[in-house]
Parts: sequence; C-alpha cells; structure tokens
Amino acid sequence: MSCITLITDFGTCDHYVGVMKGVIHSIAPDVKVIDITHDIPAHNVLHAAFVLRQAWTWYPPDTVHLAVVDPGVGSRRKILVGRYGGQYVVAPDNGLISLVHHEVPVEDLRVVENARFCLPTISATFHGRDVMAPVAAHLAKGQNLRDFGPATDRLEVLQIEPCTTDAHLTITGTVLYVDRFGNLVTNIHKHSWVRTQTQRANAQVYVNGRCVGPIRSCYADVAAGEPLALIGSSDYLEISVNQGRAVDVLACGASATVEVK
Amino acid sequence: MSCITLITDFGTCDHYVGVMKGVIHSIAPDVKVIDITHDIPAHNVLHAAFVLRQAWTWYPPDTVHLAVVDPGVGSRRKILVGRYGGQYVVAPDNGLISLVHHEVPVEDLRVVENARFCLPTISATFHGRDVMAPVAAHLAKGQNLRDFGPATDRLEVLQIEPCTTDAHLTITGTVLYVDRFGNLVTNIHKHSWVRTQTQRANAQVYVNGRCVGPIRSCYADVAAGEPLALIGSSDYLEISVNQGRAVDVLACGASATVEVK
Amino acid sequence: MSCITLITDFGTCDHYVGVMKGVIHSIAPDVKVIDITHDIPAHNVLHAAFVLRQAWTWYPPDTVHLAVVDPGVGSRRKILVGRYGGQYVVAPDNGLISLVHHEVPVEDLRVVENARFCLPTISATFHGRDVMAPVAAHLAKGQNLRDFGPATDRLEVLQIEPCTTDAHLTITGTVLYVDRFGNLVTNIHKHSWVRTQTQRANAQVYVNGRCVGPIRSCYADVAAGEPLALIGSSDYLEISVNQGRAVDVLACGASATVEVK
Repeated sequence: MSCITLITDFGTCDHYVGVMKGVIHSIAPDVKVIDITHDIPAHNVLHAAFVLRQAWTWYPPDTVHLAVVDPGVGSRRKILVGRYGGQYVVAPDNGLISLVHHEVPVEDLRVVENARFCLPTISATFHGRDVMAPVAAHLAKGQNLRDFGPATDRLEVLQIEPCTTDAHLTITGTVLYVDRFGNLVTNIHKHSWVRTQTQRANAQVYVNGRCVGPIRSCYADVAAGEPLALIGSSDYLEISVNQGRAVDVLACGASATVEVK
Repeated sequence: MSCITLITDFGTCDHYVGVMKGVIHSIAPDVKVIDITHDIPAHNVLHAAFVLRQAWTWYPPDTVHLAVVDPGVGSRRKILVGRYGGQYVVAPDNGLISLVHHEVPVEDLRVVENARFCLPTISATFHGRDVMAPVAAHLAKGQNLRDFGPATDRLEVLQIEPCTTDAHLTITGTVLYVDRFGNLVTNIHKHSWVRTQTQRANAQVYVNGRCVGPIRSCYADVAAGEPLALIGSSDYLEISVNQGRAVDVLACGASATVEVK
Repeated sequence: MSCITLITDFGTCDHYVGVMKGVIHSIAPDVKVIDITHDIPAHNVLHAAFVLRQAWTWYPPDTVHLAVVDPGVGSRRKILVGRYGGQYVVAPDNGLISLVHHEVPVEDLRVVENARFCLPTISATFHGRDVMAPVAAHLAKGQNLRDFGPATDRLEVLQIEPCTTDAHLTITGTVLYVDRFGNLVTNIHKHSWVRTQTQRANAQVYVNGRCVGPIRSCYADVAAGEPLALIGSSDYLEISVNQGRAVDVLACGASATVEVK
C-alpha cells in the first residue's frame, strides 16, 4: 500500500478536503494520505504545477500524487493518470502535469475512462471527489495503470517563458512566483550559466533594473533587511531579503524582470 | 482501530490542534487522525455543522468524527457522543450534531459523563483536550458507546430556515454560506422542485432580484466571469461565477434571497 | 516506529512542507507524520518555541518533534537534537528548544554533525529538508541519539521576562502573545500567586490599567462580549472576551501590561 499526497486549491474552510479524504479511506482504508497543500490560489493551475514539480521528486516509488485544481470541471477536459520516475500523478488535463511531463520521461500516460474506478454518480462540479480521489485510491491499492483507460501521448501544456542569454552573456529572466516568505522565485536555473566561474563571480543581479549585488551563498551574507540574490533550494535563482520580504522591500512580484550580468 | 477526523475552529497558528493530536496518540497510538478542517470561523457552530453534515457520509463505518467548536466550554452545556450510520460523532451539545441528527436515524446518543475516559484534570477552557479527544480515542480503540454515559434523546438544535414554494411554484430560499471559491450555497435542495422537467427547464434563478439565468449543468456553460446557477456537489442550488467569485461579482453573501421561478 | 510532529513557519501555499514530508517518508516509510502547525509567523522563533513548549508534553514517549523556524539557515548556527522526558526535539540552535530545555531536565543534547544522516547535498537555504527532516526520520526509525554528533551543554536561549510580585503582593506581568481567538496570553503562571485563597478571591486584574474584574472560572461567567480574566488551559493567566476577541475589545496585544492586585 503506497501513500497518496494531496495538492488542491480547496482551502481548508469547507468540507471539500474532508470529503476527498473520506472517499479515499472508504476505498483504501490502509492508505496514508499526506497533505502537501490545499492553499493553491483558487483556479491557479500554474502555481499547482510548480508545487507538484518541486515536491514530487522527494517521494518514494509508487507514491500517488493527487493534484486537483480544476476550473474546467464538468467541461470536456480529460482526466489523466501518469507514471513518472516510478511514481504516479492523477490530475485534470489542464497543464497541471506538464511541468513534470517535460522534466522526466513519461513511463505511461492514460486518460481516465473506466467508470469502474469512479464513484457510481459523477457530479458536474466535483470530479476531485467523484473521479480523481477514487482513481488515486485504487492506484494506491495496486490497480494497474493500464486498467484506468487508453494510453495517450497528448496533454495540455503550460507555457513557461525560458530565460535567455545574449551575446554579452547577460541572462534575462522573470519572476515566476512569490513564495510565503516573500522570496521572488525566477525562471533562471543554476544550469543557465554559460560563463566561467570567474565571470560568474563578478556578475551582478538586477531586479527591474535595481542592483541587488552578486549571487550570494546564504541569507546571512547580507545584513538583516537587505536584499540579496542566491540559488534557492530548488536550484533556481531567487531574490530574497535577509529576515524580510523581498516582495515588499523591492516592491515587485511575479513577472518582474531579472538580469544577471 | 478506526480513524478519527477533526473539525475545529482552532486555526493552525497555535498549539491547540497539536495538543489534541498528542492526547489522541497517547491513548490510541495506532489510530489514524485525519484533518478535515481547523479553519471553522471562531465560535461558528453553524458552519461546523454544515461541514460535518457534508463530510461525514463519505467515511467508512466506525469512523469517529471529533468536532470541536465550543464557545460554551466550561458552562453547563453537555458533551455528546452519537452513533449515526455506523459512524460516531463526538461534539459539544450546542447544535453541532443536529444537522446530522435530523438527516439520518440516530442509533445511539449518549451524554459523556464517565470520567474514566477523560483526562485526570479537566480544565474550564479546553474540553477538546480534556474530554472530547480522549473520548474519541477510546471510541476508536473499540470502547462501547454505552460506557461513556447515559442515553439521551434531547439535544440542542440549530434552526435552518427551509426554502418555500408558493402557489405559482416559485421557490424562495436563502444563501446559507459562502465557500472558499466565493460560491453562494443555498438552502434549496434539488429535491425541492415539484414542477415538471419541462417547467423546470424554463425556470430562471434570481439572487436579490437579479436574474442569473436558468439552472446550468457546469461552470463552463457560461463564459469566464459570468454568473450562473447550478446544483452543487452537495445537491443544493449554488450561485457561482465561472472562474470567478460570485460573492464579489454579485456583491451579496449569506442570507441573500434566492428565487427560482 | 514512533511518530514525527511538525512545527514550521513554511505556510501551506508552497512546496516546502510537502518536500520535507517526502524526505521523511523516503527514509522512514512507516512513520506517522503529524502536523502541529505550519503557520508560525515567518521567522518568529519565539512563537514556535511557545507552541513547542505547550504541545510536546501531550505526546507519547519516543515522539520526535521537528521544529523548523530557521532565519539563520546557511549561517554557522548549529542544529540540535535533544531528548527530554523520553521524547526528541530536532531544531536549529536559535532558542527554539530553550523553553523546553528550561522546563524539564535534558536527558541528552547533541549537535548534528554526522553527514551520514543528512541528504547527500546540503543546500544553503533549506536545512529543514537537507538536515533536520532526515535526522528526524532516522531518529523515528530508532537511530541512537549518540550517533548524530557530539554532546553539548550550550544552546541559544530565548529571554522571556518573568512576572514580578511587589511588597503589596501586586503581580505585574505582560502579554506574551495573542492566540487565534484573540485571547491575550500572559507570562503569569497560576503558581505565581503567593497570597492566600482569600486574598486571591478579592484580586482584580488590570490590562494596561483597565480593570477586567476578578479571575473567573470560565468564559460563560460573564455576558457575551464582556472581557474577563481566567487561568487558561496552559495554566497561564489569560485575558479573554466571552464569544469575542480580547485583542480587539481591549485594543491591546503582545507586551501589554497585566497586573493582578
């Protein structure tokens, strides 16, 4: 019996999370359910896709990641179940899986069509309860992926603008999102550097034109309240403030321009 | 060993939830504890009663639902433990159980009086820790309901105004609460319709006098940002906005008037 | 296999909590992980120390409490693992453990230095993932505390101003924090009283000079909306409002002066 993680935008005020957990435990009483987050901003598929991409690799084989941010519920969008790196993802086909899909080779990807693994009645507004939770529970119990529906190689894809490097080796990227600590997380991966170590040591980082100094090693490299740039724990360049909130100190957030030059 | 769900208004900033979980695990180390919500608005018994009513039916037999919203803690209000549909509910006698109690036949209802299943010292401000968590843990370990105290057939009841249908078959109801997505959840159950299918197909829904069209099947039946009425996942009429927040777009919330005519 | 509790300031919007849980389950697949809170205000070590102190005693022997509020991550601050009352605490050495440390005798306290129990790569910004989660998981699996690093008897200490009693037996204290319900929790322990029962019965409580009456037994001792003083569930004097929020009604919060005289 493997475990099931949950990523949703359901919040924690209502009954939605409790209902999904009830469905799961009714089908798979011995499964372990792990809350990753229920506080994805409502309908924000991109945020959920980021969280999924950054969390899933840390889990053991056969973990089932159930990710439900589903503004298109009840429309004709499909529901997908995929196997990546020995783990499973269950989610609506709205791009939520696509960042994982582009990062590692897909082992199997299926469209959920077999009603035998859904609840007897399927509502038009809560497929997390009626389809995705039951599918995740049956997967965790060992049901073969092939049994859920036909294979597919098509899925909706989220477009994330890549960072660019120009002839002067200036890297230009953007802030993808702001985390709970007010850190600005960019699309500049640490592997983006083509310059040599020496050159990188001299590089300065600019946020909307404002210099925040070179790339530091840790928050404590600057005084409390001062901004800095560093490689965050997910290997992307982040703009932070030591013991403060970059989003407030620098007065900018998602889609701000970040340059390394 | 069954599982215990938690519904509280304790929030997640303080130690209260952690303390209750510690008490439960000290008594029943093998029990599985499932968070439904700790974000019931403070002291809002009605909101907790809604969440309990909508979540509990999805759980397997012998689940223990521990629901603690307890503004009367320390007063003479009783603590109840009831068996409904093969599951258990532990809660203060302030109406929290009453929506479940009115929906299904009660199998057994007891007033918690046996101090043997409480902590040795009972404070005046935290019966969730001192009484209800230990009772839930002992129930999950298999203690017989009869052992907790005397049977009763009296409990505090929350009054929820029913919707009405007049001679012209106009149904008039009200918004009971607003969910995390800004949906307006009404007291109009899908079984409230007495008119025929044909008549229903022509019916229009009005919120505080403003028409939001006929009853739709799913959010995607209207354009993004547009309001609509549909039967929500709990079988009550809801007013929503496709990919938006009805509470903001329509500028009304709990106790707004909703008509179907 | 014991259980691991989590106290962090990671919030629940991002992937951080999910990542830590993934690391734990990859190392110790059978461990039970219990969320105490992820909503410690960002970087607020004192708040986390309060929550830890108030929650840990309710857990069974061998529980591992993993507490990560770590503004100094990446600097030279140490990471500690201690044994208190038969349970374990893993936390950065920034005072987070110190309230527990001063309340009960330490059985063993170690500086985490053995890289064998950390992830292969240790980032500069997320030791919760790279060091503390793996250490907690190995502890829960039964690894001996001695194996994690050298013993120490030095740790960072949070200074909490004690309450004082003057010649007239007036007790003067302060509000330490405001809880989710708007209760003002003070540093005046119920054992602070030196006066006799009779004298205490006459004592009045003042908040920033405003009298809120004698020490009551429970919220219902005053009318709804009225302020009162009582001994809270953690045995400290608290200022509350029956079914309301003292922080709003009395318009004061942390560091307000509280007198009993």
